[in-house]
Amino acid sequence: MTEPTLLVLDAEPQPRLGKLTGKARILHADEDSLAGQLPEADVLLVWDFLSHAVREAWPGEGPRPRWVHTASAGVDHLMSPELAASDTVVTNARGIFDQPIAEYVAALVLSMAKDLPRTLELQRAHQWRHRESRRVAGTRACVVGSGPIGRAIVRTLEALGITTALVGRTARGEVHGPEDLDALLTRADWVVCVAPLTEDTRGMFDRRRFALMPPSACFVNVGRGQLVVESDLAEALAERRLAGAALDVFEREPLPAGSSLWEAPGLIVSPHMSGDTVGWRDDLGEQFVAQFERWTAGQPLRNVVDKERGYVPGH
Amino acid sequence: MTEPTLLVLDAEPQPRLGKLTGKARILHADEDSLAGQLPEADVLLVWDFLSHAVREAWPGEGPRPRWVHTASAGVDHLMSPELAASDTVVTNARGIFDQPIAEYVAALVLSMAKDLPRTLELQRAHQWRHRESRRVAGTRACVVGSGPIGRAIVRTLEALGITTALVGRTARGEVHGPEDLDALLTRADWVVCVAPLTEDTRGMFDRRRFALMPPSACFVNVGRGQLVVESDLAEALAERRLAGAALDVFEREPLPAGSSLWEAPGLIVSPHMSGDTVGWRDDLGEQFVAQFERWTAGQPLRNVVDKERGYVPGH
Repeated sequence: MTEPTLLVLDAEPQPRLGKLTGKARILHADEDSLAGQLPEADVLLVWDFLSHAVREAWPGEGPRPRWVHTASAGVDHLMSPELAASDTVVTNARGIFDQPIAEYVAALVLSMAKDLPRTLELQRAHQWRHRESRRVAGTRACVVGSGPIGRAIVRTLEALGITTALVGRTARGEVHGPEDLDALLTRADWVVCVAPLTEDTRGMFDRRRFALMPPSACFVNVGRGQLVVESDLAEALAERRLAGAALDVFEREPLPAGSSLWEAPGLIVSPHMSGDTVGWRDDLGEQFVAQFERWTAGQPLRNVVDKERGYVPGH
Repeated sequence: MTEPTLLVLDAEPQPRLGKLTGKARILHADEDSLAGQLPEADVLLVWDFLSHAVREAWPGEGPRPRWVHTASAGVDHLMSPELAASDTVVTNARGIFDQPIAEYVAALVLSMAKDLPRTLELQRAHQWRHRESRRVAGTRACVVGSGPIGRAIVRTLEALGITTALVGRTARGEVHGPEDLDALLTRADWVVCVAPLTEDTRGMFDRRRFALMPPSACFVNVGRGQLVVESDLAEALAERRLAGAALDVFEREPLPAGSSLWEAPGLIVSPHMSGDTVGWRDDLGEQFVAQFERWTAGQPLRNVVDKERGYVPGH
């Protein structure tokens, strides 16, 4: 049997694929060489999950890989109508980021409740200024995005005594449908966005929705930057129509040094790091190796993305 | 029946004692007038829990109140050998601060794990710098102080997936005795101090104990400043023998503007606010009113402090 060819789109650092030695012919591509190498590939591993090169290379000339795996939860950076319409299977890194992102959201919610950014500001000025802070137990969160990350966020916030409502693409069981979102926003203390980026969700957090939230509410985005109309959020913060916000993802990443978001009042800006705990790259590599071994053994792949919807459906 | 005289040692803002109208003759004292007014008081409410005036006024001249209640969890600021030896009953605000302080500790632990202070620093500089952060699930915390606040901290950290060990004055059930502390410190990721300040605990976190902790560990003090030898902590941080620390309480409060602690590397300084969530003064006032009603009805007081030990014993 001929070894299948695995093409890896990577920026440094590279995945640890030593376990695949003898099981695959491994080639590396960068953004410029990807289109030319794609016809050789049976499998494409999108290790550089910030690149849009896959989307641009599709459909292109010649044979396409039968399987594309991305080392990310979101697939918006690689999905195109042509890839969606093709026979190529797409899988993602579902599961790796659930607990880390849930913890990150808890860190943001608690920090905002306890006014920690202001405490650090006063510390720099050597100022002792006692303030009252908020209890989180008994408050209400609305988590938008009902995949495994959203569910992990719900579990973690509930563990802190926060009452949560989870909003997904369709109502099912305890998950609310989008038709409930506006009403839930009006009574939320915390709104957490972790929806997949699709044509339905793009720009869903806009001026109208920020206006629905109480002025005491805080907004957190750990999904994708394009889910939020950033200028509308900045305006709501500037006019104190929201108590605070935290963005880990942005329309444009890295966020340009000249962006006014860096200094938006009450906004915490972090560099797309919510899921990236020590060892995360190893976890992503191991997950792919296990997938590859299932693939070569003819077993069903896990985390198969519904390419029309843009995420892995079901629980 | 004559109304009992209730003397309130208060700084602004004052407790809401409207419900006691007709049930008590209420007098107010400040630090200077306290000693002169004490002989008139049947009951003393120490509303100004930062004041040491009670300790200094004891034993003094003339009759003493039969009951002293302090609007704080700690009693170190008022307890003296003479008060301990007297017949006066001392009660405290046990219960009010449990959940707020537990949340505050969780905020600090998560913020340190997720490197939030550094994120805010980079934000000020408009710098996008991705870093890996720590997962808290699966890490280990050692919580020193097994009263209700320590227990609430344990519950909250466990809810985040952190394995905890609780250390109290004596081993009982799942609580470790002080003889286990040093060994627990050597394998702790998080050390949280919330012990009462007594002659046994004063200065318990010193150079020797900081040296036992792994260099990756973080230390949090939400108990009393005097539990920690501040210069030893500053040295451990400066030499990077600890990954981080957060102090909400200090040997001297307010922390003087000239203190070097404000700028100790990796240290979060907050102004003794961990338990003070919106409405806390109302809660303290209601708790006292309920106590006062029990007292006048001849019912047993709650939260009676063991004056030798310096805290309310039991669970």
